[in-house]
Amino acid sequence: MLKNNLFLKALNGETVTRPPVWMMRQAGRYLPDFMALKKKYDFFTRCQTPELATKITLMPIDQIGPDAAILFSDILVVLQAMQLEVEMKDNIGPWIPNPVRSKIDLEKLIIPDIEEHLGYVMDAIKLTQKELNQRVPLIGFAGSPWTLLCYAVQGQGSKTFDKAKAFCFSKPKLAHDLLQKITATTILYLKQKINSGVNAIQIFDSWGGILSPEDYNIFSWPYIQQIIDEIKNKIPVIIFGKGCWFALHDMGKSGASAVGVDWTCSARNARYLSGGQVTLQGNFDPSRLLSPIPEITEAVYKMINEFGKDRYIVNLGHGILPNIPVDHAKAFVDAVKSYY
Amino acid sequence: MLKNNLFLKALNGETVTRPPVWMMRQAGRYLPDFMALKKKYDFFTRCQTPELATKITLMPIDQIGPDAAILFSDILVVLQAMQLEVEMKDNIGPWIPNPVRSKIDLEKLIIPDIEEHLGYVMDAIKLTQKELNQRVPLIGFAGSPWTLLCYAVQGQGSKTFDKAKAFCFSKPKLAHDLLQKITATTILYLKQKINSGVNAIQIFDSWGGILSPEDYNIFSWPYIQQIIDEIKNKIPVIIFGKGCWFALHDMGKSGASAVGVDWTCSARNARYLSGGQVTLQGNFDPSRLLSPIPEITEAVYKMINEFGKDRYIVNLGHGILPNIPVDHAKAFVDAVKSYY
Repeated sequence: MLKNNLFLKALNGETVTRPPVWMMRQAGRYLPDFMALKKKYDFFTRCQTPELATKITLMPIDQIGPDAAILFSDILVVLQAMQLEVEMKDNIGPWIPNPVRSKIDLEKLIIPDIEEHLGYVMDAIKLTQKELNQRVPLIGFAGSPWTLLCYAVQGQGSKTFDKAKAFCFSKPKLAHDLLQKITATTILYLKQKINSGVNAIQIFDSWGGILSPEDYNIFSWPYIQQIIDEIKNKIPVIIFGKGCWFALHDMGKSGASAVGVDWTCSARNARYLSGGQVTLQGNFDPSRLLSPIPEITEAVYKMINEFGKDRYIVNLGHGILPNIPVDHAKAFVDAVKSYY
Repeated sequence: MLKNNLFLKALNGETVTRPPVWMMRQAGRYLPDFMALKKKYDFFTRCQTPELATKITLMPIDQIGPDAAILFSDILVVLQAMQLEVEMKDNIGPWIPNPVRSKIDLEKLIIPDIEEHLGYVMDAIKLTQKELNQRVPLIGFAGSPWTLLCYAVQGQGSKTFDKAKAFCFSKPKLAHDLLQKITATTILYLKQKINSGVNAIQIFDSWGGILSPEDYNIFSWPYIQQIIDEIKNKIPVIIFGKGCWFALHDMGKSGASAVGVDWTCSARNARYLSGGQVTLQGNFDPSRLLSPIPEITEAVYKMINEFGKDRYIVNLGHGILPNIPVDHAKAFVDAVKSYY
């Protein structure tokens, strides 16, 4: 039995004494121990070696003390498993040497056998659960099909993902075939993660916010809904779309247990737009962790008061930044723990 | 007298037979003639040579036929005039070798004499008006103080402007002093543009959308409101904040004649959030100009039907992209002209 089940209670809509807290990218570059490992092992080695992924996943649990762990991995491992070559380049980020642009490119992608191609993730989950020893629940995650398409087609990060959008708008049939292939893979992947022992799933639609509401309903949302439908009865699901305030209504009635919001959406707007019933997660501006600690503490109290302590999971509105001092991150978590 | 006053009528809230149309960055890199000039003259030479700025400003008027011209220039000329060194680097964009990080850096910045330091903009306005010969009105523009601070402090473009935000959150007094200095300069600059003959002013808050609503009301909005207050009785003002859906309420009651919206905000949400009275401008996804022409035409009709033909200016939701075919841009404008 879990020693700390605040996170699962909040996902379940139960009354809590204080909201749970975790931080997106909490096992990331702001932690000196992470940076030390980063010097020794490249990005995908860290993802693909269960001992390293476990070690990294546990760092913030030991050092910062959030109420949930999230498995160290990357959304792009799904594309790799589909046989798309993905590299991680310094100062550039994800790099796909042969992006998907044609029917032939698409046909090269497989719907992989999960144990064969992503077994290392399952091993990392089992090892992490063993090391966590029921201290806190473990979150598994996947990127949304739209967000993965963005990288697969653009070939790298971008402000506008103009090539990815051009592909969708000029070859919609191909785009939908690609999205469906990613969706099928993601469903298999997440089901296997659930079998391997994660306690909740978060879906990241990191690039949903570059679409109009109409295009979101064509190219992103239907595929996310397919995924939610396939797993929501097995495990609590959190859907987070960066910049997707316009989609909060659909997200709220999707069957997801919680909906993540970024800091451009006030608590009041988030409750209103999501329908007022679903648990919300967010939405502290990661840059605001650069404020002096007393201001962070005050702002966290204010945020909890605005969202309300129930049906709420404290988090950042996006991943923590590399330049955040560790004691500021800890102050964020401590503020939530001192809330009463 | 203006031969085409549709744009000014829409800004004034008058009934029109069809809405006016123009495109942000309509004099930009998608035009082959612009690219030819770009090869011969560097960025700031194009801005600072009235004959070149005029020539570029008129290109889309002659070739695409929008209902308004916007002076070719850049928001960063204001920082240059304040004595901050600004370069434009290939593949990087704006580059400030010595960004503002301290009180000493800030004190080096001046509130410039506009004729002395930005006289070339005024000359370009006069020459452009002469060449336009009353065909369509001419828009002048400025960046918001917050958006200029982002560049001045970060030193270059960024997805998160983490250094700019860190500066504001850790040294708020310095940040406000910088914002006020930029505001004072911008007011002088825009008043001189009005004296030189522009017919409307647009303020671009390109990076307002990276702030929380609360921080927007601390670091961006009060300075924009100051600018609007100083010029709204002289000329119609358009305020456009990319990603600033959360600020539409304040924008709607600011005294601006029109409020720009991006494509993540539906017409219905834009009317609701802005209060329902102010003229709206937007919001076609620039990437959607990559769709086949018949789809562009249909989507433009649909957009006008949703916003309504009155109190509406057709535009993109952000600048046109370099990879848009010229005939697609023209199809966008032609669709509006064929609306009835």
